[in-house]
Amino acid sequence: MPMNSASEKIVRAAALVIGDEILSGRTADRNIVEIARMCTDGGIVLHEVRIIGDDMDEIITALNALRHAHDYVFTTGGIGPTHDDITAEAVARAFGVPLEHRQEAADRIAEKFGRKVLTPGGLRMARIPRGADLIDNPVSGAPGFRIGNVFVMAGVPEIMRAMLHGIAPTLAGGTRLESRTVPVGVGESTIATDLAAVQERFPDVSIGSYPLMGKQGVLTEVVLRCGDVNMLENATRAVQQVVDACHERRGITLTSETRTQ
Amino acid sequence: MPMNSASEKIVRAAALVIGDEILSGRTADRNIVEIARMCTDGGIVLHEVRIIGDDMDEIITALNALRHAHDYVFTTGGIGPTHDDITAEAVARAFGVPLEHRQEAADRIAEKFGRKVLTPGGLRMARIPRGADLIDNPVSGAPGFRIGNVFVMAGVPEIMRAMLHGIAPTLAGGTRLESRTVPVGVGESTIATDLAAVQERFPDVSIGSYPLMGKQGVLTEVVLRCGDVNMLENATRAVQQVVDACHERRGITLTSETRTQ
Repeated sequence: MPMNSASEKIVRAAALVIGDEILSGRTADRNIVEIARMCTDGGIVLHEVRIIGDDMDEIITALNALRHAHDYVFTTGGIGPTHDDITAEAVARAFGVPLEHRQEAADRIAEKFGRKVLTPGGLRMARIPRGADLIDNPVSGAPGFRIGNVFVMAGVPEIMRAMLHGIAPTLAGGTRLESRTVPVGVGESTIATDLAAVQERFPDVSIGSYPLMGKQGVLTEVVLRCGDVNMLENATRAVQQVVDACHERRGITLTSETRTQ
Repeated sequence: MPMNSASEKIVRAAALVIGDEILSGRTADRNIVEIARMCTDGGIVLHEVRIIGDDMDEIITALNALRHAHDYVFTTGGIGPTHDDITAEAVARAFGVPLEHRQEAADRIAEKFGRKVLTPGGLRMARIPRGADLIDNPVSGAPGFRIGNVFVMAGVPEIMRAMLHGIAPTLAGGTRLESRTVPVGVGESTIATDLAAVQERFPDVSIGSYPLMGKQGVLTEVVLRCGDVNMLENATRAVQQVVDACHERRGITLTSETRTQ
């Protein structure tokens, strides 16, 4: 749900997860939620995520589609030392610049590995698109890079998180969406009509309703999000009234115990 | 990496994950890996995944792009009882058919809830695009549906898994890709050159190299995938020789202990 009041600045991002191992089900992605949380914390709207395989044409096509439609693009995966790591080359091609040896990247890898002469695999990771800035990798040395509005990061979650931590302060966010959560002791069907009425009264507040499994059956969490804190508080009070009335009708007292999954 | 030998039939699928809560980082997706594994087990290549928000135009655009380019599309999320659940309506619009009350869906919901008169929320979940087949929901009653090559499922992981289990036997898979995994006691840089040479000898085998953190540092798993088992075995032997030689040079004996994360 877009929020477009005049005082708000919307900064939009996309994530591009690259890796055959995610699509085959061999590996469960753990990076998307980290990128999503960094965006939310920084006032950036993560607008779309795509997961694609290690395929040159697919990466170029997806990256060009996403980078022209968003303020930032974050990619993960495919910047390691082996033949199937083709992301750096694909990014260079997408931007129409050469992929070339970057001595600073080689030095960082050599330092981490404690050797002066890099293996061919190490040298592969020192190939960086011309004009890109390096992204620090405190875990294993081999850097990611930023080119234009695209941040290219590793797929290994420990390394990706470290890189993300490094780039987060460099991003220019927009209006930060504040959020409030209202717990509900019944399934969402029961409050659906009242909730829809609150949403109509507050069209600029995004009101989401999410089921969760409680010990005694299905419960609900209502999550409200808005850049305007006053409006958010008013909408939250309206939802809370709906929920309190429902609880009272049904004699429900909500405790943390009730909500434990 | 596509595999196109004449005897192979490639069946391709996409997944479309729908939900603001995934993009905000409130919820970590747990469905993609389940869909990916079902596809791999059934001889279906999961080719692309997209995650988008609960937005009518975005859902219609993404769904139409994906369903025309793939044999199957699996969607998750947005078929609950509240105002923010708009997937069923978006799918109906994408297919150009009316979204209408389906008595059989209402009956299944009523039976599960143990009541004859449905709430407005319950009735909302009984709205199904004309011509769609219902997908059974043994967990909470409210069905998903299949229309054309699109399978529309719930976002709650427990329900999604049950629906997936139901539809899996109805899918026509292609040639099943067999896979072999070769564990390696060193980081992937060390074997990168030899591995690339094996890949050149076996262009129809997809050879992926994945780092993992071991107790004493970074290890590697090499995963080979191919529809032709003989070719796969030959390539696996070639990789194993490379790895054995590397282990011998470095005096490494690989045990399950070494590999424990």
